[in-house]
Amino acid sequence: MTGHILAFSGGVGGAKLAAGLCAVLPPEQLTLVVNTGDDFEHLGLTICPDLDSVTYALAGLNDTVRGWGVADETWQAMAMLSQLGGPDWFNLGDRDLGLHLTRAMHLRARESLSQVTERLTGQLGIAHRIAPMSDDPVRTQVETDMGWLDFQHYFVREQCRPQVRGVRFAGADQARPSPGFAEALARADLAAVVVCPSNPWLSVDPILALPGVRDRLKTLCVPVIAVSPLVGGTALKGPLAKLMAELGKPVSNLALAAHYDGLLDHLVIDQADAADAALLRKSGLCATITQTVMREARDRERLASEILAIVGGVD
Amino acid sequence: MTGHILAFSGGVGGAKLAAGLCAVLPPEQLTLVVNTGDDFEHLGLTICPDLDSVTYALAGLNDTVRGWGVADETWQAMAMLSQLGGPDWFNLGDRDLGLHLTRAMHLRARESLSQVTERLTGQLGIAHRIAPMSDDPVRTQVETDMGWLDFQHYFVREQCRPQVRGVRFAGADQARPSPGFAEALARADLAAVVVCPSNPWLSVDPILALPGVRDRLKTLCVPVIAVSPLVGGTALKGPLAKLMAELGKPVSNLALAAHYDGLLDHLVIDQADAADAALLRKSGLCATITQTVMREARDRERLASEILAIVGGVD
Repeated sequence: MTGHILAFSGGVGGAKLAAGLCAVLPPEQLTLVVNTGDDFEHLGLTICPDLDSVTYALAGLNDTVRGWGVADETWQAMAMLSQLGGPDWFNLGDRDLGLHLTRAMHLRARESLSQVTERLTGQLGIAHRIAPMSDDPVRTQVETDMGWLDFQHYFVREQCRPQVRGVRFAGADQARPSPGFAEALARADLAAVVVCPSNPWLSVDPILALPGVRDRLKTLCVPVIAVSPLVGGTALKGPLAKLMAELGKPVSNLALAAHYDGLLDHLVIDQADAADAALLRKSGLCATITQTVMREARDRERLASEILAIVGGVD
Repeated sequence: MTGHILAFSGGVGGAKLAAGLCAVLPPEQLTLVVNTGDDFEHLGLTICPDLDSVTYALAGLNDTVRGWGVADETWQAMAMLSQLGGPDWFNLGDRDLGLHLTRAMHLRARESLSQVTERLTGQLGIAHRIAPMSDDPVRTQVETDMGWLDFQHYFVREQCRPQVRGVRFAGADQARPSPGFAEALARADLAAVVVCPSNPWLSVDPILALPGVRDRLKTLCVPVIAVSPLVGGTALKGPLAKLMAELGKPVSNLALAAHYDGLLDHLVIDQADAADAALLRKSGLCATITQTVMREARDRERLASEILAIVGGVD
């Protein structure tokens, strides 16, 4: 495959495919654009969970047993904060805090989130470009039976228990795609847009909500290929299945593809959902059946290679 | 002894006697006023080394082997920050960071340093009153052969290597004694002022530099009793002996007493310096010879009791 790949990612699930793409593509052929709608301000720090999940995965620092955060993590700062009566609902590990403190310092010095991300990923030896979707704050909020909740209040504090009625992205209408994102969207050699297996409502929609992004994707003559985060008719992780049900959707690849409203050309689904392929094709989409569950590096790399083969086939 | 004791303390050395005083006095008979001239802003946090040394000592959380900071400390956040190219010259432990993050949160919410200190010490089960000397920022700066240095740059980053020519307390002329300090100074039942074994130039002078404090101490009809931080003609810890020499003073209890310029009534010196007592008395001071080195709780409590006996004798 020649040309440039623009990939969208949320957190942990998306980060696995992002790591696979980095393993099979040289840095100059890939731009990873990461959701920042989950970001929030906490304890004077700007926490960017999805950017950090991707960063840790690409640096090989992610905890593969716990499934999130940094390996060899400890929780001493939070234990002390908790003893002192501080807000301990969002558990920040000590190593993770080291990153947040460093990022906060550079943000206070008026570096953009893109600049800080480039700096920190560079320090960790990551050669590929990880761009936040925007340098302007976009904050995902979830309408629930408890009212509107900031995303991390819904996701972490309330453990996704509230019933979801809707989702909005505060600030998205005023936010601009980050320079790295805008540059990738404008590339003449753009070969495909890859949507990593992340939650469409919570992790991909914030990226698509940025002014001009959806229109640009519609006019681009390159395939938009998503990997479904559903496996066997449910989500491997996170609130996706519960959320789809609460929004009145069937928990299916068809409903997921329909949500993208004409934006997708191709959905990669797991072999456990092979039966969905015919329905997807009937709705006008290309569908590829493979193993989308990524347990090890070779799974990530195989899936990434299969996606590049799709792009190559379309070329 | 009846009446109230007002004690001044710097960091680790002073904190030992502070803990001794807390062990032998009920909370209503003691106000500990702690130097904040060493405080500084770092990584978006307000670090208060002396307040924290006293807090950790009184809560029994201090590391007695390392001699400073919290017991069972880890250094994971700083290791990550260092890997990310952040400023790692000031080593903040993970548990310590938990305290700094909590304090910073309350300071951002416009609590005063006094209010935050009361809150944090209360959470740690400390019944005695620890008051910062001031809620207004006072920042000790040291004139050296490298120019004027902020205190922590001199003390930690440069490891006290530069030659000291002078010391100033930026902001002291505009700062007010904290409410707890002012209240203790105004008490009708004040029985004595105790200066814990801290560095006069770096830890006690900032307290005395606050507007009105020196004058008030001079007009008070209560004894001002200092415990010398010198033992055997040198300092147990820290830059005191080097500093005195660089400022052209003999490293002696006499020079130390002279520095207080008439403010002291009584100097408690170590048995290793017993020979100084006659000279001190000749200069008009009372002098008590005892063991001032505090290795264990019983040393701290014995020294505290001896000081109270001096106060009782003066009554």
